[in-house]
Amino acid sequence: MRTRQEHGPPRILGAARDLALPALREAVDGLHPDLARLCGYHFGWCGIDGSLVESKEGKFLRAALVLLCGQAVGAPAADVLPGAVAVELVHNFSLLHDDIMDNDDHRRGRPSAWVAFGLANAILAGDALIGLALDQLTGLKNEAGRTATRMLAEALNEMIRGQAADLALDSAPAAEVTAEHYMAATYKTTALLYSCAAIGVTLGGGSAEVATVLGGACRKLGLSWQMANDLENIWGDPAVTGKPVQGDLRQAKKTLPVIAALRSRSAAGTQLAGAFSDTAPAESDLYAQAMLIERAGGREHVETLSRRYLDQALAELTTALPASAVVTELADLFRFIVPSVARSGAAGGGEVRALGAAG
Amino acid sequence: MRTRQEHGPPRILGAARDLALPALREAVDGLHPDLARLCGYHFGWCGIDGSLVESKEGKFLRAALVLLCGQAVGAPAADVLPGAVAVELVHNFSLLHDDIMDNDDHRRGRPSAWVAFGLANAILAGDALIGLALDQLTGLKNEAGRTATRMLAEALNEMIRGQAADLALDSAPAAEVTAEHYMAATYKTTALLYSCAAIGVTLGGGSAEVATVLGGACRKLGLSWQMANDLENIWGDPAVTGKPVQGDLRQAKKTLPVIAALRSRSAAGTQLAGAFSDTAPAESDLYAQAMLIERAGGREHVETLSRRYLDQALAELTTALPASAVVTELADLFRFIVPSVARSGAAGGGEVRALGAAG
Repeated sequence: MRTRQEHGPPRILGAARDLALPALREAVDGLHPDLARLCGYHFGWCGIDGSLVESKEGKFLRAALVLLCGQAVGAPAADVLPGAVAVELVHNFSLLHDDIMDNDDHRRGRPSAWVAFGLANAILAGDALIGLALDQLTGLKNEAGRTATRMLAEALNEMIRGQAADLALDSAPAAEVTAEHYMAATYKTTALLYSCAAIGVTLGGGSAEVATVLGGACRKLGLSWQMANDLENIWGDPAVTGKPVQGDLRQAKKTLPVIAALRSRSAAGTQLAGAFSDTAPAESDLYAQAMLIERAGGREHVETLSRRYLDQALAELTTALPASAVVTELADLFRFIVPSVARSGAAGGGEVRALGAAG
Repeated sequence: MRTRQEHGPPRILGAARDLALPALREAVDGLHPDLARLCGYHFGWCGIDGSLVESKEGKFLRAALVLLCGQAVGAPAADVLPGAVAVELVHNFSLLHDDIMDNDDHRRGRPSAWVAFGLANAILAGDALIGLALDQLTGLKNEAGRTATRMLAEALNEMIRGQAADLALDSAPAAEVTAEHYMAATYKTTALLYSCAAIGVTLGGGSAEVATVLGGACRKLGLSWQMANDLENIWGDPAVTGKPVQGDLRQAKKTLPVIAALRSRSAAGTQLAGAFSDTAPAESDLYAQAMLIERAGGREHVETLSRRYLDQALAELTTALPASAVVTELADLFRFIVPSVARSGAAGGGEVRALGAAG
């Protein structure tokens, strides 16, 4: 239960959690007991042995987007709740499988599900969450349910294409990687965010046009977020981000600041190319690399882009819908998701510069 | 292309392949190039490097079931083709993931996809095939398409539950395993066969009742088939089955003949329990184990059950539909799928004995 003191986005996320959680738990409880236990652990509801633990839940951000978008077109929460539950299930399918693919052995401060329960069960549990997500939407008998199912399937396809692009990025030589490769990989995140808005509007009885514009706004939000994450991973405070210091650099990941620096044709970029050898760098080199990326303009470039995508997302939000309390809540949630970018203020006018222009 | 000489089931399977293949290839070609290459290899269309090879395709059995069931309710093939393609995609999703979970490193005489392309890409390719399967059905604008999508989602859920039961069977002590555990695991195969009939009838414009009865017939067919596979693995000719001699015994798999023998309370069953220690037996012990299973009545029990399930499947087929050339083709296909059982003739009257009665 939420405390009464919460306001703004934390209250919205808490309300989304309170709405979505019962249906989510009911769905998971219907799985084979071995998969239900694994998923209960993954969702942060229990320990490895099924015991109750201090909650380690996710943020229910996607559920909140679905619910707010439904509310924004005038629908009661009950009409869009199956969509909110479905996107949370698909999001968690992708976490279960991506942790295996990316060899990430920790999530939210605990061993990842594949580490705790083995590879076979983690793969199968991910598959199971797709099935449960489909259940939520294919059970709806109206045309909106059919459309929402199609939207979820499209999101699934685009997420998978994005993840494939991300895996390809990992194995590509750093010198050959462009911003286009990076953008192809962002679909792993942005596709589901698009569908949150599109499904929320559709199940809420809104028009296809509003679904598309609001979906686009959420996709831009996702781009801003992804880029802000890249920046925080290099220059953020680990105490705030909760992630290991410069984990991306340690793994020689080709994030956008790195790509922009490598393609900057600056002296610092050339120096970085020599240091960035597709293998994990020595611990002592991490800060030197961060400095080279900054000197080559990679930091500023990505900060500018991230801010502009947030600005565009906010602009598209107000294009899609007339001003209302819900639209204000959505805008607040957008800013809450990328706080570092929102804090640093607007990026000024102009279109987002073509990413290729960085190189 | 099929040769003109083929008759009966081989002709039917060939025709199903010719109908489904273009849509299947088109769907796969739309994936990220890395996933398209992996899937092309998995489907047997090309080698690891993308080169053309002698075809190593699957049998298109599930596509044939969908198409025949649609035809049986009077629909043209085009109406049900998306269903045929969708079930083949879901079947191959399960092969890709199950090969990883079951640590099977070969399929159709070649390295499994996860061995050839790595774990990450094989997991993601399996996910991608679910997405493509959904595309086939969510693109249909009619009510039948919505129902068929729901049926496919239900099949997915049941397959996953069955695979979870199968994984649990692997890790359970042999002494504790019952026929009920085995039956729970059979859903990994039978759920999709049920949906082949149900989706074919539904997209073909048939009634919900015919869909259910014909689906039930295909589920029985699947049970007969699964049990026949268990038998062939122990007593079949590897030159015919194409599988390693007694591979299941070598892996100490708790297949139904083993379970029936272990629970037979016979002297041979007790002797088998001593030998069957949940670890792979010595090579020289495999034939001794097979003999103990036979002496304990495990072979005859499962032969009887497999025959009865085939008989029931055939009976339910003729209950669901009036006699016609297509129904005869379906019956021929049923017998073709479990040739050893069909050859050995009818099991006589009576209901299938409760499996638990074996122990």
